[in-house]
Amino acid sequence: MKLYAVILCGGRGERFWPRSRRGMPKQFIKLFGDESLTRRTSERIDSLCPAKRKVFVAPAEFANVIRDRSGKVGKFLFEPQGRNTGPAIGYAAAYLAAIEPDATMVVLPADHLIERRREFLSSVRLAARLAQKGLLVTFGIPPSRPDTGYGYIQTGEKIAGRGRLTAHQVLGFHEKPNLAKARRYLKAGNYLWNSGMFVWRVDTILEGFGKFMPGFHRMLLRFKKAVGTRHEDSVLKAMYEHAPVISIDYAVMEKAENIAAVRATFDWDDVGSWLALARHSRHDKNSNVLKGLCLTKDAKNCIVDSDEGIIAVLGVKDLVIVRSGDAVLVAHQDKVAEIKELLKQARRVPAAKRFL
Amino acid sequence: MKLYAVILCGGRGERFWPRSRRGMPKQFIKLFGDESLTRRTSERIDSLCPAKRKVFVAPAEFANVIRDRSGKVGKFLFEPQGRNTGPAIGYAAAYLAAIEPDATMVVLPADHLIERRREFLSSVRLAARLAQKGLLVTFGIPPSRPDTGYGYIQTGEKIAGRGRLTAHQVLGFHEKPNLAKARRYLKAGNYLWNSGMFVWRVDTILEGFGKFMPGFHRMLLRFKKAVGTRHEDSVLKAMYEHAPVISIDYAVMEKAENIAAVRATFDWDDVGSWLALARHSRHDKNSNVLKGLCLTKDAKNCIVDSDEGIIAVLGVKDLVIVRSGDAVLVAHQDKVAEIKELLKQARRVPAAKRFL
Repeated sequence: MKLYAVILCGGRGERFWPRSRRGMPKQFIKLFGDESLTRRTSERIDSLCPAKRKVFVAPAEFANVIRDRSGKVGKFLFEPQGRNTGPAIGYAAAYLAAIEPDATMVVLPADHLIERRREFLSSVRLAARLAQKGLLVTFGIPPSRPDTGYGYIQTGEKIAGRGRLTAHQVLGFHEKPNLAKARRYLKAGNYLWNSGMFVWRVDTILEGFGKFMPGFHRMLLRFKKAVGTRHEDSVLKAMYEHAPVISIDYAVMEKAENIAAVRATFDWDDVGSWLALARHSRHDKNSNVLKGLCLTKDAKNCIVDSDEGIIAVLGVKDLVIVRSGDAVLVAHQDKVAEIKELLKQARRVPAAKRFL
Repeated sequence: MKLYAVILCGGRGERFWPRSRRGMPKQFIKLFGDESLTRRTSERIDSLCPAKRKVFVAPAEFANVIRDRSGKVGKFLFEPQGRNTGPAIGYAAAYLAAIEPDATMVVLPADHLIERRREFLSSVRLAARLAQKGLLVTFGIPPSRPDTGYGYIQTGEKIAGRGRLTAHQVLGFHEKPNLAKARRYLKAGNYLWNSGMFVWRVDTILEGFGKFMPGFHRMLLRFKKAVGTRHEDSVLKAMYEHAPVISIDYAVMEKAENIAAVRATFDWDDVGSWLALARHSRHDKNSNVLKGLCLTKDAKNCIVDSDEGIIAVLGVKDLVIVRSGDAVLVAHQDKVAEIKELLKQARRVPAAKRFL
């Protein structure tokens, strides 16, 4: 089996402002430890996919950043525009089909955090075996809370695996639920978070595009033929100009029949906001997470992240306080999801633009 | 009458960290508008005391800072050590006695904020007239709230003035009261905040030192004789080595009989904490005071002060947020008085010392 890792490096990660900026989104910054999320994602799959079988799909504007931050190099596929995961995955599949028609691809978003590597690799191996049967395999995460921020996969009968590591039929995809529904899903036990990680053969996914997005599929085939020719760039550009903005879930997964879900046994965090830092960092005795030089007095349950200088925190609780270069964020933890709106508002303030 | 302004520039102003630092205390920084408090204090008295009749008493370590920040120059008297207001005022009185035995001195702390200059000058004129009679004249501020952070002056019969501007006998000085006492003082009407501003003839105050601090008085006379000679510096140094650490209130005012109080008609703020910034600045519609480039969303009643870059504030209330160069402070407004203790704690952290 020729297993290729396709690492998706799109997305702006605005919710990590001011550490992430327009020119440096979250997947490229060193949020946790000494390596970027992209590099950690890349290294996590090393033992199955060496550098020559790694493909990074990234916005063209980050070409320099990603060359710097992705660890052992692989192939870089630069997208002329961001078009969500559907076109990004189609682009990678068409490219792989051109160079290796027999390839199986593991699709990994660059900005997920997974600590238990061994379990992760076992899950990928199981998924890759199933993919050989012509299945589109997705990874579902057993929910630990009734989270309303994820889509859910409803699973049915076990079709492979043993012990804790199993693969299942998929009975349906469900969009982000309200709290009551999320609680029912959690209680039912057979609903999993849709992680956005997939394994399939390139011919299988291309068939999927052919069935559910025939127009885009024609462009993919045209691009596949152009790979390695002098027309590659111009065909790519034309393809992206006409590509719809659509996720792979909407584009293919929710419509296809040949779907399976591996029930993940590894930990998983999609690092959606500053609160993720608290989930993966050591706390002091007052439940504060302190990165960089911080002084606290009567501070409780705060996340403080300073890249230089000093931050002093006095008599407050439940805050996120971040200083990154020329910008400081002070936010209540219940409001961090609104950073995006704050930045939208900031784009209308001429003096603020250069800090975004 | 030869009226001299004696501007006291001591004190560390730690409560304005991180804008104020060990090397740049609050009286020298531009907290309000474009000029330092020292410069504003100096310019406020310009029409009564031109530069040649101004004396700045300051810690020797701030010699360069004060030359830069005090506006039109005057005479600088540098203290070898900080010894509180008693020795500082004695030093200035002895110096003035040497160069102008007939001088009257207006003692003004450099870090007070007074906006109504005309009323201030009228009050000084009244006090200076009373000083010619051999009185030690203090300025009392009619209290606007039962503040427990000030000493109070209990006043008696009117002895001069008319209309709102009057001077009174002093029946007693009272230390910082508890809240119940402070409320009684406020209700009584004849208790005034002890402002720390004074007017007297140099011979009167030197007599006061002679009566209540005879040892220090002998040193003052020795220094007075040494002024202008090659011994001036060494005598000054010896005087400060032996000078007690004592406020002018404890040293003289609370013991003397020849005391009067002018009931101030001007506004007054001793700028004791970051909350003063809110009292003297424009608010936005959510009661936030914003200095520098600030973005807010769902922020209420916050004081935000940024000297560079940008501060974004999201979903919080009642905070003081200050960024000054390499340091950031985030404090609840109810806790700002504890900045001093936070800094004390910081002095034990080697990496933090250079930010204090």
